[in-house]
Amino acid sequence: MEIIREDEAVLPVVSREVQYSFSVYEALRITGGHVVHLDDHLHRLAVSCHDIGLVHPFSARDIEESLERLIAADSIKDATARIFIVGGPSPLFFITYADLLTYPDSYYSDGVKATLYHGERFMPEAKTSNLLMQYIALEEAKRQGAFEALLVDRHGFVLEGTRSNFYGIRGNAVYTAPDDKVLNGITRISVLKAASELGFRIIYEPPRFDELLSYESVFISATSMAAMPLSHIDGTPMRKERWEEVLDMMRLVRKWE
Amino acid sequence: MEIIREDEAVLPVVSREVQYSFSVYEALRITGGHVVHLDDHLHRLAVSCHDIGLVHPFSARDIEESLERLIAADSIKDATARIFIVGGPSPLFFITYADLLTYPDSYYSDGVKATLYHGERFMPEAKTSNLLMQYIALEEAKRQGAFEALLVDRHGFVLEGTRSNFYGIRGNAVYTAPDDKVLNGITRISVLKAASELGFRIIYEPPRFDELLSYESVFISATSMAAMPLSHIDGTPMRKERWEEVLDMMRLVRKWE
Repeated sequence: MEIIREDEAVLPVVSREVQYSFSVYEALRITGGHVVHLDDHLHRLAVSCHDIGLVHPFSARDIEESLERLIAADSIKDATARIFIVGGPSPLFFITYADLLTYPDSYYSDGVKATLYHGERFMPEAKTSNLLMQYIALEEAKRQGAFEALLVDRHGFVLEGTRSNFYGIRGNAVYTAPDDKVLNGITRISVLKAASELGFRIIYEPPRFDELLSYESVFISATSMAAMPLSHIDGTPMRKERWEEVLDMMRLVRKWE
Repeated sequence: MEIIREDEAVLPVVSREVQYSFSVYEALRITGGHVVHLDDHLHRLAVSCHDIGLVHPFSARDIEESLERLIAADSIKDATARIFIVGGPSPLFFITYADLLTYPDSYYSDGVKATLYHGERFMPEAKTSNLLMQYIALEEAKRQGAFEALLVDRHGFVLEGTRSNFYGIRGNAVYTAPDDKVLNGITRISVLKAASELGFRIIYEPPRFDELLSYESVFISATSMAAMPLSHIDGTPMRKERWEEVLDMMRLVRKWE
């Protein structure tokens, strides 16, 4: 492994694996020079590789050491880092970083808007570069002034966002998709743990897109946002009764980092 | 546009559009310095861009001129060329080329083997880099000693191959998927024209995976292969009664280049 300039981190256009998006990634949060939930991210990276049959020679220890060297070399305090591995006969491995992705307080106090997009991910449990649907859905959401697009499957279930997991609160339960239908967010693990700690049962049934108002609040989670309440979905105002509890989860998730 | 060395044709790892596979491409056949069906490829490229909302400043004339300059500069006679455009705020445009993709005569005289893969493409009409399913399906086919993997939709219809279109012959008709369910192969247009010329009716109903033996022959088509008969699917020998007519179509398609 070597440290190179960012503009030298490039992919060959003629690589078949680049052309076919045969690659996996992880997005990590670095705060105060500490990588949040690194072991979980490395584990999920291995799961992604396994699921799509991507074999590479970079051990978890190699990746961890490379990340440590990069943090030390650039004196990184707070950042969003990205581990990226391209498969094939000559696998490629990169770690890049950018400013820590944060959101204004108003996103939490006022909630954010989401849109619905009808479409199903291929191999939802693997975090791969096969992200065209997510790109298109999110661009469409942004055009409509929304922050996230939620993906609705053929049965009408809202499974997850383009870059987040999705939840509904009703009574003493948090509803969310089963593990094998969505990307198993590292923050999702923390959110569900926080929900349990706050006295919620976890029910692995995703909300339906036509029953969203039966939930007393709906919210999303991701590494960059922890837990964030949704104020509107496709223009319809969502209920806010349980919003304080969403923010309690957010605070617990951040505390555990 | 400028002519650069192939190893300088690279994509930045930190580009969001590279990360999300927000890109389109065309694979072209160059024989004797002549680009086969260039206008059709440029038209389909525009359709792909339109379908996924990819806006770029490269006109059809720009692309054609770049291709002509590349052919002249490297005195290209026979080759497979690839046009590749990445979208986003700073679109990227590349043309690369490699040896002309050809197959041994035995592939036509003996047919080739295919496997079945149950999965549906996102936006089948657009030729994008969102190809992970195709990559995985084809790798699995190769492991089983097959040449192509055929994609079967949720209803059991065999729509197309990972890099080919798919057809069945029964009586005086050629059966294939409707245009809006598959990639509209440039060679598919020629194949269907050849089939008409040979007296076949075209019926836009794809063969079902569990009724393949009701077809008197099945075959695939692509730019590199024209029309190629299938000898086995998932290990089951296919019928060969109409094989000569498949080869007649192949010869017509090549003649029209």
